[in-house]
Amino acid sequence: MYIPTLADMTAAEERIRRHIHRTPVLTSSFINSLAGAELFFKCENFQKAGAFKARGASNAVFGLSDEQAARGVATHSSGNHGTCLSYAAGRRGIPCTVVMPRTAPQAKKDAVRGYGGKVVECEPSTSSREAVFAEVVAETGAEFVHPYNDPRVIAGQATCSKELIEQVDGLDAVIAPIGGGGMVSGTCLTLSNLAPRIRIYAAEPEQADDAYRSFKAGHIIADDAPNTVADGLKVPLKDLTWHFVKNHVTDILTASEEDIVDAMKLIWKRMKIVMEPSSAVPLATILKNKHVFAGKRVGIIITGGNVDLDKLPWQ
Amino acid sequence: MYIPTLADMTAAEERIRRHIHRTPVLTSSFINSLAGAELFFKCENFQKAGAFKARGASNAVFGLSDEQAARGVATHSSGNHGTCLSYAAGRRGIPCTVVMPRTAPQAKKDAVRGYGGKVVECEPSTSSREAVFAEVVAETGAEFVHPYNDPRVIAGQATCSKELIEQVDGLDAVIAPIGGGGMVSGTCLTLSNLAPRIRIYAAEPEQADDAYRSFKAGHIIADDAPNTVADGLKVPLKDLTWHFVKNHVTDILTASEEDIVDAMKLIWKRMKIVMEPSSAVPLATILKNKHVFAGKRVGIIITGGNVDLDKLPWQ
Repeated sequence: MYIPTLADMTAAEERIRRHIHRTPVLTSSFINSLAGAELFFKCENFQKAGAFKARGASNAVFGLSDEQAARGVATHSSGNHGTCLSYAAGRRGIPCTVVMPRTAPQAKKDAVRGYGGKVVECEPSTSSREAVFAEVVAETGAEFVHPYNDPRVIAGQATCSKELIEQVDGLDAVIAPIGGGGMVSGTCLTLSNLAPRIRIYAAEPEQADDAYRSFKAGHIIADDAPNTVADGLKVPLKDLTWHFVKNHVTDILTASEEDIVDAMKLIWKRMKIVMEPSSAVPLATILKNKHVFAGKRVGIIITGGNVDLDKLPWQ
Repeated sequence: MYIPTLADMTAAEERIRRHIHRTPVLTSSFINSLAGAELFFKCENFQKAGAFKARGASNAVFGLSDEQAARGVATHSSGNHGTCLSYAAGRRGIPCTVVMPRTAPQAKKDAVRGYGGKVVECEPSTSSREAVFAEVVAETGAEFVHPYNDPRVIAGQATCSKELIEQVDGLDAVIAPIGGGGMVSGTCLTLSNLAPRIRIYAAEPEQADDAYRSFKAGHIIADDAPNTVADGLKVPLKDLTWHFVKNHVTDILTASEEDIVDAMKLIWKRMKIVMEPSSAVPLATILKNKHVFAGKRVGIIITGGNVDLDKLPWQ
């Protein structure tokens, strides 16, 4: 297992600069007064392809040799990673194949295709996904880019908190949602090296709290098909992300489905931004754990904005 | 009738600086490719109290003498002006009364009260509104701040396009929605003085096209209770705003209800921002009049973001 280093983050920063946005940091005095803390929202919902995953995907794609790149990239994802890998591959002009359950939302398939990627459908089971994915790789020789358990991806995501500490002085803490742990690992990579004083928190839905239980137990616990409105956070930790979480995260906090939806609606209403349920989990946990953050300067990663506008969770 | 001047805009800029946001300008390469033009969205949905009207309201409130201010301010508005006047009065610590039909949405009443203003209800008719408003002013001696036909308000709104031309070089045109014409008048005030090369367009719903018909006829035409999803744009021009529209607007373009809702959803989906139906009218007209804007650099005023998240127009 290769653990990405600060040098990998720095290389990623240079490599992906032309392909991603330096996203803005927004604040809300109303939400600050609710939270009793100073909150700085790093808006990766404004990122290319609508999610921070454009960082890791771009780093993986633009780090390939010309020979590797010619065979293309492939992944399995029914979420933002598939869209973002398609985006990055499109920028480099190479093929991208995304294996996705045939039951995945049409909008997700359209998003991959919108950036030029190819969708290959499988049955909605792990065995079908693995079999179909193996076929794709055997046929194309494409490079597999895992959604999070990949040093290139983590080094790419790590550029987000590098920007954040350049944009906001004197942060006491940074909090990000945790699913597979790619964003949290990238945050750990950057902050443990460049700003070790800043505490790192992860936020997770109660109904998909495998990372929380892993953290408390001291080893990876994976759940079978958890159910939460924060659909980007259903996947389990893997060895590489567990390494970062175990060593650098101060605590993992959880939030109920109702608190997540309330926090999401609060952010839409007061900050006028469109973001995903997953991105609301950090604020939901802050509002339930005010003593932890009281008077602190806290960075919050708004991870993405790809939400189905016809099916909002408060309706 | 006092016509506000560039000096009034400059004074407003200094006066309101500490009370408003310098809002960001966002772009979308996807929407640019649809439009065949370079579009620069000036995001007043991120403005204090969620709308550009915080500019004009703040200029009116902070321009009062201490003696005037002590008696407070009053207006009639069931929209953003009422909320923004309450915001500005709250910042100065003076009373604010907003006369509103008892049938106005609860959220609008709550917004006024949320900033410390007082809501006085009237019947939903012009005669009741005028009678109740006269009583309020007689009792309190409050200063009336009209939503748009007021030189202080127009000078305040004019600061928006001052920022825009500082933020974006070489604009060929600026387009804003038109209701009563406060934002369009402010835009005319600033651009006709500082950047007369930039063409000014106004965008209006077909179903509330009184400004369009006024512009073509050469005199003010007011409609009785037009009906459009762009509920901020139902009010008619008045003498002061008509002065600016008549003298400085290149053209007024209109859009159907369906085109407005489509443009709104497109902006939410691709730009990840929450904005009002009124704010979508400019893009709707651009997409229907591509020949007018082809290859041009166009500033678009996103006027506000105060929308009922429980009742979105595409649902």
